Amino acid sequence: MSESIPDKAVIEKAHALVAPYIHRTPILTSQFLNDLSGAELYFKCENFQKIGAFKARGGLNAVLNLSEEQIKNGVTTHSSGNHAQSIAFAAAKVGVKAYIVMPDNSPLVKINAVKGYGAEVTFCPNTPEERQNAVNKIVEKTGAAFVHPFNDYRVIAGQATAAKELIEDAGVLLDALIAPVGGGGLLAGTSLSAHYFSPETKVYAGEPEGAADAILSFKSGKVEKAPFIKTIADGLLTPLGDKNLEIILKHVTNIFTVSDEEIIAAMQLMWERMKTVVEPSGAVVLAAVLKNKEVFQSRKVGIIISGGNVDLGKLPF
Amino acid sequence: MSESIPDKAVIEKAHALVAPYIHRTPILTSQFLNDLSGAELYFKCENFQKIGAFKARGGLNAVLNLSEEQIKNGVTTHSSGNHAQSIAFAAAKVGVKAYIVMPDNSPLVKINAVKGYGAEVTFCPNTPEERQNAVNKIVEKTGAAFVHPFNDYRVIAGQATAAKELIEDAGVLLDALIAPVGGGGLLAGTSLSAHYFSPETKVYAGEPEGAADAILSFKSGKVEKAPFIKTIADGLLTPLGDKNLEIILKHVTNIFTVSDEEIIAAMQLMWERMKTVVEPSGAVVLAAVLKNKEVFQSRKVGIIISGGNVDLGKLPF
Repeated sequence: MSESIPDKAVIEKAHALVAPYIHRTPILTSQFLNDLSGAELYFKCENFQKIGAFKARGGLNAVLNLSEEQIKNGVTTHSSGNHAQSIAFAAAKVGVKAYIVMPDNSPLVKINAVKGYGAEVTFCPNTPEERQNAVNKIVEKTGAAFVHPFNDYRVIAGQATAAKELIEDAGVLLDALIAPVGGGGLLAGTSLSAHYFSPETKVYAGEPEGAADAILSFKSGKVEKAPFIKTIADGLLTPLGDKNLEIILKHVTNIFTVSDEEIIAAMQLMWERMKTVVEPSGAVVLAAVLKNKEVFQSRKVGIIISGGNVDLGKLPF
Repeated sequence: MSESIPDKAVIEKAHALVAPYIHRTPILTSQFLNDLSGAELYFKCENFQKIGAFKARGGLNAVLNLSEEQIKNGVTTHSSGNHAQSIAFAAAKVGVKAYIVMPDNSPLVKINAVKGYGAEVTFCPNTPEERQNAVNKIVEKTGAAFVHPFNDYRVIAGQATAAKELIEDAGVLLDALIAPVGGGGLLAGTSLSAHYFSPETKVYAGEPEGAADAILSFKSGKVEKAPFIKTIADGLLTPLGDKNLEIILKHVTNIFTVSDEEIIAAMQLMWERMKTVVEPSGAVVLAAVLKNKEVFQSRKVGIIISGGNVDLGKLPF
């Protein structure tokens, strides 16, 4: 078990571990979006990643870091979305059983995706307590190893590899990196990779106004609750983890909030102009850049597109 | 003027000329689509290209091959779609005037895109004769140089650079390359690049059943008309050019036709599974591969996604 903030070597090891199983996703640029933002934007397309989201990285690194003894009875987690797929995917790659607890109101398409990787799905009411209870029962009964969706240093080190690749592949020294923040695993990992591999690069985050716990926590220095939860960015509803907050407080320069209207407008731009299918959570960062042009003016900005898992039948435009 | 089939050096020169102005588009792979097809698929994403389609390459190469004397009065062409944008884009890069003849029933979004590059647009009734007449008048009046949309060796050499990059970047020896066929510039260029840069690679094409002139011409050996024109693949409506047919007869192994239902199903798969915005014409090739699994079984297949210019408000799914 990894019980301290990942250092440079831990992230390098994570990258070596996960690389054989994931896509080294491309970086796209758009003259139109450069002109619109006044900045030079480098989009790291984790929507093209395995399972359609960056979370394949964290789940894989967590599972690949378990010892044979720890993993012999399988792995378990609770999640309604991409983390569930990431653990199911990682378990399938390693060849062990995955037991996934999903809220009983999870979208059928996500349940089917998890089952598609051969995982055993257990349903429970959608409260944090019920989800943890269901996982505890599975651990007791099967001896499976629990991997927390985001508040886990192995998961953070895995997510860090996306920014590491962006830093290595951009072909320029990035002035800034910006990632969305929900549970905080991607943002914490991104800020660690900037710190170790490109220390001159400042790190920012985009967060929906309708799930604004990270900005409050960033200001107060302790984990705060969102004033209300109501946003189209369904991948960013999770509360911030304390392990992530500690890293974010050290290495992140600022967090910007955006409205759902701004998220939808940015999402449509990315579909129309970049020809990429991006989920609302993945458009939050471009929305934040376009809303804060003065911050990013004439700067080289790396943008992490977190994922592209969206129901084509329910587009907001 | 280039009046013979482009040789290897001509395509290499075309690539050197256009490279500074275009994206070296990435190659994506999908385990899901590999499993579904039984083949190993390498998707060259020209939907991420400048102007949203491979045609940026041919237009640029044609314009960049004009002498200062030829180009001093600007360039002109007729097109309702991507070629219009490609010439307008190329003229803007070179810094000369573009006069584009567009049918008066062209979609507003395409007209605006052409105007967005600073081109002067002239409208005419949508018949081949009226289009050519309008261009002739412009040539007479302005002295602009005419660039044919597809039946032009400089355009063919430019389109060939997409397959050249795919051959260079795939990281494997491709057993097959497959491109869509409309006017035939992309298919002819693709087959030339295979011939010169990867002679063991066989070249195939996908064509909509509702614009099936290429398959008839391929069988009879001379330019034939399509029995009827009715397909969602609006980028492939143009009749086959005779210069292209000559090359296709020499270097293409087979052409497969697909129905609109098969095109739409392939398009939806590419949006959902690859997270890429692909226009119907760009999905024709995957549809052809999925319809002819026995041909591509266990083979490494390079697929050229021609473009991603689609109206998000009018999706067929």
